[in-house]
Amino acid sequence: MDFEYSDKTKQLLEHLKCFMHDHVYPAEAVFHRQLQEDRWGEPAILAELKIKAREAGLWNLFLPDSNSGAGLSNLEYAPLAEEMGRVLFSSEVFNCSAPDTGNMEVLARYGSPRQREQWLKPLLAGEIRSAFAMTEPKVASSDATNIETSIVRTGDDYVINGHKFYISGALNRRCKILIVMGKTDPDNSDRHRQQSQILVPVDTPGVNIIRPMTVFGYDDAPEGHAEIVFDNVRVPADNLILGEGRGFEIAQGRLGPGRIHHCMRLIGQAQRALEMMCRRAEQRVVFGRPMSRQGSVREDIARSACEIEQARLLTLKAADWMDRYGNRAARDLISMIKIVAPQMACNVIDRAIQIHGAAGLSQDYNLAQHYSYARTIRLADGPDQVHMMQLGRNLAARYGAESD
Amino acid sequence: MDFEYSDKTKQLLEHLKCFMHDHVYPAEAVFHRQLQEDRWGEPAILAELKIKAREAGLWNLFLPDSNSGAGLSNLEYAPLAEEMGRVLFSSEVFNCSAPDTGNMEVLARYGSPRQREQWLKPLLAGEIRSAFAMTEPKVASSDATNIETSIVRTGDDYVINGHKFYISGALNRRCKILIVMGKTDPDNSDRHRQQSQILVPVDTPGVNIIRPMTVFGYDDAPEGHAEIVFDNVRVPADNLILGEGRGFEIAQGRLGPGRIHHCMRLIGQAQRALEMMCRRAEQRVVFGRPMSRQGSVREDIARSACEIEQARLLTLKAADWMDRYGNRAARDLISMIKIVAPQMACNVIDRAIQIHGAAGLSQDYNLAQHYSYARTIRLADGPDQVHMMQLGRNLAARYGAESD
Amino acid sequence: MDFEYSDKTKQLLEHLKCFMHDHVYPAEAVFHRQLQEDRWGEPAILAELKIKAREAGLWNLFLPDSNSGAGLSNLEYAPLAEEMGRVLFSSEVFNCSAPDTGNMEVLARYGSPRQREQWLKPLLAGEIRSAFAMTEPKVASSDATNIETSIVRTGDDYVINGHKFYISGALNRRCKILIVMGKTDPDNSDRHRQQSQILVPVDTPGVNIIRPMTVFGYDDAPEGHAEIVFDNVRVPADNLILGEGRGFEIAQGRLGPGRIHHCMRLIGQAQRALEMMCRRAEQRVVFGRPMSRQGSVREDIARSACEIEQARLLTLKAADWMDRYGNRAARDLISMIKIVAPQMACNVIDRAIQIHGAAGLSQDYNLAQHYSYARTIRLADGPDQVHMMQLGRNLAARYGAESD
Amino acid sequence: MDFEYSDKTKQLLEHLKCFMHDHVYPAEAVFHRQLQEDRWGEPAILAELKIKAREAGLWNLFLPDSNSGAGLSNLEYAPLAEEMGRVLFSSEVFNCSAPDTGNMEVLARYGSPRQREQWLKPLLAGEIRSAFAMTEPKVASSDATNIETSIVRTGDDYVINGHKFYISGALNRRCKILIVMGKTDPDNSDRHRQQSQILVPVDTPGVNIIRPMTVFGYDDAPEGHAEIVFDNVRVPADNLILGEGRGFEIAQGRLGPGRIHHCMRLIGQAQRALEMMCRRAEQRVVFGRPMSRQGSVREDIARSACEIEQARLLTLKAADWMDRYGNRAARDLISMIKIVAPQMACNVIDRAIQIHGAAGLSQDYNLAQHYSYARTIRLADGPDQVHMMQLGRNLAARYGAESD
Repeated sequence: MDFEYSDKTKQLLEHLKCFMHDHVYPAEAVFHRQLQEDRWGEPAILAELKIKAREAGLWNLFLPDSNSGAGLSNLEYAPLAEEMGRVLFSSEVFNCSAPDTGNMEVLARYGSPRQREQWLKPLLAGEIRSAFAMTEPKVASSDATNIETSIVRTGDDYVINGHKFYISGALNRRCKILIVMGKTDPDNSDRHRQQSQILVPVDTPGVNIIRPMTVFGYDDAPEGHAEIVFDNVRVPADNLILGEGRGFEIAQGRLGPGRIHHCMRLIGQAQRALEMMCRRAEQRVVFGRPMSRQGSVREDIARSACEIEQARLLTLKAADWMDRYGNRAARDLISMIKIVAPQMACNVIDRAIQIHGAAGLSQDYNLAQHYSYARTIRLADGPDQVHMMQLGRNLAARYGAESD
Repeated sequence: MDFEYSDKTKQLLEHLKCFMHDHVYPAEAVFHRQLQEDRWGEPAILAELKIKAREAGLWNLFLPDSNSGAGLSNLEYAPLAEEMGRVLFSSEVFNCSAPDTGNMEVLARYGSPRQREQWLKPLLAGEIRSAFAMTEPKVASSDATNIETSIVRTGDDYVINGHKFYISGALNRRCKILIVMGKTDPDNSDRHRQQSQILVPVDTPGVNIIRPMTVFGYDDAPEGHAEIVFDNVRVPADNLILGEGRGFEIAQGRLGPGRIHHCMRLIGQAQRALEMMCRRAEQRVVFGRPMSRQGSVREDIARSACEIEQARLLTLKAADWMDRYGNRAARDLISMIKIVAPQMACNVIDRAIQIHGAAGLSQDYNLAQHYSYARTIRLADGPDQVHMMQLGRNLAARYGAESD
Repeated sequence: MDFEYSDKTKQLLEHLKCFMHDHVYPAEAVFHRQLQEDRWGEPAILAELKIKAREAGLWNLFLPDSNSGAGLSNLEYAPLAEEMGRVLFSSEVFNCSAPDTGNMEVLARYGSPRQREQWLKPLLAGEIRSAFAMTEPKVASSDATNIETSIVRTGDDYVINGHKFYISGALNRRCKILIVMGKTDPDNSDRHRQQSQILVPVDTPGVNIIRPMTVFGYDDAPEGHAEIVFDNVRVPADNLILGEGRGFEIAQGRLGPGRIHHCMRLIGQAQRALEMMCRRAEQRVVFGRPMSRQGSVREDIARSACEIEQARLLTLKAADWMDRYGNRAARDLISMIKIVAPQMACNVIDRAIQIHGAAGLSQDYNLAQHYSYARTIRLADGPDQVHMMQLGRNLAARYGAESD
Repeated sequence: MDFEYSDKTKQLLEHLKCFMHDHVYPAEAVFHRQLQEDRWGEPAILAELKIKAREAGLWNLFLPDSNSGAGLSNLEYAPLAEEMGRVLFSSEVFNCSAPDTGNMEVLARYGSPRQREQWLKPLLAGEIRSAFAMTEPKVASSDATNIETSIVRTGDDYVINGHKFYISGALNRRCKILIVMGKTDPDNSDRHRQQSQILVPVDTPGVNIIRPMTVFGYDDAPEGHAEIVFDNVRVPADNLILGEGRGFEIAQGRLGPGRIHHCMRLIGQAQRALEMMCRRAEQRVVFGRPMSRQGSVREDIARSACEIEQARLLTLKAADWMDRYGNRAARDLISMIKIVAPQMACNVIDRAIQIHGAAGLSQDYNLAQHYSYARTIRLADGPDQVHMMQLGRNLAARYGAESD
């Protein structure tokens, strides 16, 4: 047991921190200003940063495959994801942003050579963006067996009909490809063999992007969250990934690393909020002395630090277990971080907002938008409650049968 | 002691509920659609609703003066404010929206005949809107003695210089008049005699509205929250309200009723969120049965109901004490509701969001925007912490000296 | 609506407060000292206080019947119960202690003339004590249909066999009579007609008091919580209350007022803890200044006051509804106070303990024992969770069917 | 970074678990039964277990010195302390119980040869017990500079006068030696040089043990918590440890490892409570199905598991940092675990109590007594608030000066 990052991680992290300091933090205001002009395009500053990041060797860090990616384990990548989490758009700077990371992993592991050539290659190069069309407005999508979108084989094609929403990234004009989850065999008695995943280019006729969904008041441009109606969308049969009935299995495969990434980013957000809280508390004078001398402010800072450090360690342990024993063995730990990290980030950021006063809710700080992101993750990939149900059930079964 | 509303309140409340049901709820979607076209004007539907409300005798209900208003006590008005709170824009339908209500009360109580004629009359008629310019970005404005805006007598005029933000309502094109808080005597040894309040028409040269501030991602149109720079703004000396050095006193006067109104609106919001939570829980099927059959959902509903009912009773008691014994005697109760109601509303609405899934964060439900409003009130008129400090100090002093 | 106590209540409350001040608070230390000598008898000081209370007309205040009791409504009695709650043993001083109050009410409403003569009369006179034998160690007794104790008719007698625990009051040597809940008809298809309640004198052969159960290390002498085995206990058939199959109905009848009483006592405990917290905070110097000047202490005081006042109002409203509309109509409000008040008292007392340091956990203050009592009430008459389930289910059903 | 215990730790832990399973769990009931006979002596079963433990090589595991102890680092010892925490008395079985561990470390590091020979040797052999007399009833002892006990040099002796309470272990008849904290130089301008620590045999004339203090209702026999008055207690001058004015320094030295031990024991308690909760939930049927199928129970289990695992990791990290960088560098981490672990244990055990119903509060389960212990630790070695103040202040200072 050892709580020090490895030398490899330390070096990469130091490199990344310098890059953030030199290039990303100074670009935050510019990014938002450029977005005002054109919400669904790529802000020029983002394109520039991506070139710099690639030159700096900070590219595709998430990909465990060392040919295309950095060859990092989950445990090695986690602290980097935390660092990227400090600025919402920075994951994309390093081509490490969701849902592209998950989509690239799916294509790398399950894609046919043609699929990889056509879609994985430009994704790895950061030339295009992608989205993952899973959630549906009419059913509780945390239970994947509820999904109603149909994928029907018709000759050499599949025809897709369905209604999706909160499809993150799909509003971005650079988003070219969707991975769509639907049912090829809705009557299969095995409810986990009904689903398939299929590649659908965004410009296929019948892919109707209805509107941007907002989160709190944010449109989260330039990615956005699309409502999409699939109206008799026809794609070649070999766009299907892995095979009919394998959709649930593919979805499971992406969840483990995806959750680690999300949680580590949230920890980065929370850590940054803590640091902002400390700066504000030192600088702001209320009733004659700096806020940092007030007991209630110190308690808020202390509690936040305790919660962050604990969530960080839990997430790192989950990463370590995934690396050592596989996603299945790490299942309970993955549930735990999904339960813990988003709520922790909400709590910490909320305290930071409170200490910033009205400005904490404004566009002048990143706190309100970060809160919005953290709050969303309490619902994404299954709401907290679903994970608590599963974890509680597993533990009751495990310990229920034991004696002391 | 008696926990039934009076007959007068019951009748007015029934009347108001019918109006909400017949006219306001059906107008919610229209209102937001019309706002898309023109964010800082008056949506046509709002103008129509105001005419109907006035015809229905549901107008200026907040005003205790029975000549211009409904002549209701705080206790009588509170349940009506709760009802209005269910729809964010509905207070304005009945000419009962903040900050106009507070401004009208200030003018009614402290305004000169000319000031009342020129500004109170059109406000009471709903012809114009107003704002209250208090908060400043550079100082902790919860402590009014920090305010830095200067109001300097120069001949027959006052000249105002300062920087304000989060001035709610000031972006609305119908907003014609600002009440500005500033210092006429910054060196007065009595720190509560330094401030004055002065009337400043929005179109006075030097009133520079810089930008809309957002709350989470919302611009809260059509009122909005303005950042304003006052750059050598010159107004006639008789625009001063009540007299030099009376600004703090006037500010105190508006806080009591204002907090009752805010808190009751928050209770209405929370109550509506609870009802939405119940409907969603009954209608949504997860893992084979309605969500309302899940223990954790029932607990969320039960906890929310307990918290709402308690906050409601506390607020009504504060209203009753203000009516009976005056704002000063009700001081601790007013602190209590300011501490309790906004956090309660945040908690309840957050649970409702969770039960609605991603849609709960979207523009399709009012939950996320209501959360944003409730979260703001935890900071407006002093953050929670300031009220806890005062209440805790008062109670320690009171009981600290007693024996059992 | 009116938040002032009635004149009648004010006078009684004032009278009661004087009595507490003059006689009960000064007796606290004596009571505990005398108990050291003989844990299951009546401390002499208690006997003296009862005589004084009776002379002062402060006797049987809980009983709505004005012949034997004070003729107070629940709303009128509630503030008196709160006052009594400040000292654990003081309810008995006024012959208002559980479970005797519930037992007296049961006998008054459902007892036969002989039952009333034999048991109600000495109970009203404070000559004997009683207990209510409901909870069983082997089943979840919050669901009364689980009760396994059998009551079998045999000739002119009933024979009782069963195992009970946490039978409060039964260890007291003055306890002469038990009301026992059991099943006369365990196969009845109506699960709420299986139970009956029967009077069992403590000295009946076969009533085996096994041991005192403790609560956090307390034996809660002189009442105590007994484990009792009923081993072929034979009592005359006319000891049955109301009739076979009426046990559940009788149990329901006692719950409403019983919960009001418990909750009001808890509010009294919490209020006293708040006052102690304030005194300690004013008097104790830490790091150079009184604790009451620390922000975190003020927040604890403020939060506690807010929680107490809200729980008090909620309980009073429940009392008012019971008086006006009956226990059935007040059902949800009664669930609410059962959910709110015990947890509130635990929270407030826990904060008071923290401010008192180690001494707060000791025999030198009443805080730890009051905490133990409040914690117990989170389980008595059904754990919090059961009440949340019921309340949540009722509300989901009610609002689930409504539109806005 | 690596989240696996080392092989050495794994083997020792496995060995310890077997011993617990074979010898300690089966002895729990016996221990409490024997204690009923004689509360302040050594229960025979404890003496037997100590012999077995010593034979099994499970002795003095806490001591980093590999001559007298097991030579384990904090990180290696921590999981063993967790395991011991599962049974309150089991630390003593392995001669690893507080406050003896801290006292032995103090003597080993700072004791003179004579002091070590006379007191450390029999302590290491488990022949005697000891206590640490620090806390005083009249001052806030969390601030050591408040201590009022005087230690005055008089010829070849020191004379001690003072009033202490909650001196854990001092009621045990096997307790032979006290380490007393007091002031030799109360006027020293350096407030951290006023204190000294001195060895006082319990049987020295003038050491008056007044009474056992209780915690909730527990006397925590056979150790107990003594109130002690030191009335002109005279001991030889060479009983002073390390030298005059070194008392604060010695106290600091014992805090780091002591907190690790306490926190790990609390984690063991919480883990056992979680397992008991799971068993109860699987076995108990409520409303027709096992409690473990209720959503609210699963949430309680899941939340508890998340909190335990996080606190465990945090404590292990603190241990690792102490081993690597020393107590000073680990200061903030030590504050964190002191803030986190006791409250976590209270929360988890409280949930376990709730799931056990009234029995959870009784002598039939260890939950209520474990809660009492955990609650005490929120006050011992400084209340939560003091640690939050320090941690908050340190972090505000550290981050307050940084940019992003």
